[in-house]
Amino acid sequence: MKIGLDIMGGDYAPKANVLGAIAAHQSLKADEHLVLIGDTQQIKPLLSENGFNPDHFEYVHTDEIIGMGEHPTKAILQKPNSSISVGFQLLKEGKLDSFASAGNSGAMLVGAVFSVKTIPGIIRPCLSTIVPKLKGGIGLMLDVGANADCKPDTLLQFGILGSLYAENVMQIENPKVALMNIGEEDEKGNMLSLATFPLMKETKLFNFVGNVEGRDLFNDKADVIVCDGFTGNVMLKLAESFYVLTIKKGLKDEFFDRFNYENYGGSPVLGVNAPVLIGHGISSPEAIKNMIFQSRDMITSNLVGKIQAAFQ
Amino acid sequence: MKIGLDIMGGDYAPKANVLGAIAAHQSLKADEHLVLIGDTQQIKPLLSENGFNPDHFEYVHTDEIIGMGEHPTKAILQKPNSSISVGFQLLKEGKLDSFASAGNSGAMLVGAVFSVKTIPGIIRPCLSTIVPKLKGGIGLMLDVGANADCKPDTLLQFGILGSLYAENVMQIENPKVALMNIGEEDEKGNMLSLATFPLMKETKLFNFVGNVEGRDLFNDKADVIVCDGFTGNVMLKLAESFYVLTIKKGLKDEFFDRFNYENYGGSPVLGVNAPVLIGHGISSPEAIKNMIFQSRDMITSNLVGKIQAAFQ
Repeated sequence: MKIGLDIMGGDYAPKANVLGAIAAHQSLKADEHLVLIGDTQQIKPLLSENGFNPDHFEYVHTDEIIGMGEHPTKAILQKPNSSISVGFQLLKEGKLDSFASAGNSGAMLVGAVFSVKTIPGIIRPCLSTIVPKLKGGIGLMLDVGANADCKPDTLLQFGILGSLYAENVMQIENPKVALMNIGEEDEKGNMLSLATFPLMKETKLFNFVGNVEGRDLFNDKADVIVCDGFTGNVMLKLAESFYVLTIKKGLKDEFFDRFNYENYGGSPVLGVNAPVLIGHGISSPEAIKNMIFQSRDMITSNLVGKIQAAFQ
Repeated sequence: MKIGLDIMGGDYAPKANVLGAIAAHQSLKADEHLVLIGDTQQIKPLLSENGFNPDHFEYVHTDEIIGMGEHPTKAILQKPNSSISVGFQLLKEGKLDSFASAGNSGAMLVGAVFSVKTIPGIIRPCLSTIVPKLKGGIGLMLDVGANADCKPDTLLQFGILGSLYAENVMQIENPKVALMNIGEEDEKGNMLSLATFPLMKETKLFNFVGNVEGRDLFNDKADVIVCDGFTGNVMLKLAESFYVLTIKKGLKDEFFDRFNYENYGGSPVLGVNAPVLIGHGISSPEAIKNMIFQSRDMITSNLVGKIQAAFQ
């Protein structure tokens, strides 16, 4: 197994990325290889500084970087030697089994679709996020920003993707899938959710439990919450701002600790032909380490194969 | 001035409502009269229990109640003697200067539009909510649920309504108005926000400061945040759930205290020809008291007259 990691992406790259890789190494099995993609002249000194044997990793040298503010499509096309472009090229060629980066999210989404392509039958790939649950455990919300405008059949597919992720990677049996809405009753909603509800109610492709509301993100009503990417992105950023607030205010609590994105690693891109993970821009070594584990879990569970089978 | 209050609406009615009215009374001026609308046979004993002179209030007896779960339009039409229907009838006849209730929100919205009507020139009235700001003070978010689907010109009007409320009732000079979006850049968004942005950028009707994101709800980037009612409702309920969490977990903090809806009273309905306020279903006496003060402030500031003038 080859787990690809972009060493140049993220606000604290390359240092946080290299430290994350070192931290992950000791928990990886002998056949779980980490491939570091980036400027080896920057990577090697960081390894020796930490007394780490460079032979534990594989390296692919790149000499371009896609910046956080760059236009995704232009950057992918104009920087073929960037760590993100090279990572996707290797993923496409089967030389990597997964690719993860804490760099430019848009470039990661575009790169995933350009290189390994959308799984046949899937209308739009999406970006998911892991949410901690109050009573323990975790859940998934999707889409959180890849598709600002969605149609009912796209949301129905997000339900399938989320359910398969929850079942196979999070190991939740018969995951409860819900639709984010502005009321619990069947007839509540905007045009999109009203049109999506009957599709979800009728489907046998996942265990639909009905509508949930904004207040239900962290409770046990659903394991998987489906929404359009605009709503999901706004919710995710609002929730993050609360976490930041509790930190700033020194409010210590076990739940808010679990709310730390670092614990979960990255946001899985679902619906493309390979495991792809996008890390938070401010990814710390801990976050990078967990993104590596998440990459491994997506490979081991054969999530992509199961999604491909479901859409055949 | 006649401030109308529904005594029968809300989870803790009539008791919390009567206690809130009593609490408000001592801060009201001699010409600021409270009119209690509800079952006087239930109201009077509560006053005497609290040693309160019933002559301080005016009363309108009603013998029907619209329940929280009733269909708004049907309930308004089928229960003409309900406290909500009677309140709106009096508001329409000019026998009240404002009407507030913590009862069925949908019935309040329908009742407002049926009775005092939408202000000419306004496409859709909306529901706003007051949000505490981290550095002190308060802001306004709208719409939070009256219009699940919105068009760009509707959002533009929400900007005008919110700006006028912030300026006249919250007394914020030249309020900063922002569009809730999924990125700060001009070209970010879904179809709705992308089409709304240029309208807001060009308008001279309020001080548009650009896009804000979910994480900006409580900071000082904007005094007024405009969004469609689906997004606003989801955000409001998510934010409320955090407040409830901090309470449950015993996390004491000045900011989270200010987050308590009780401090602000109700949600102003903006865009109809009279001041209308909808209280939280779980309104306590404190919340009812503050909703009464908010009613008074909406009357005193002549907010409705100023909105009417702006749309002439």
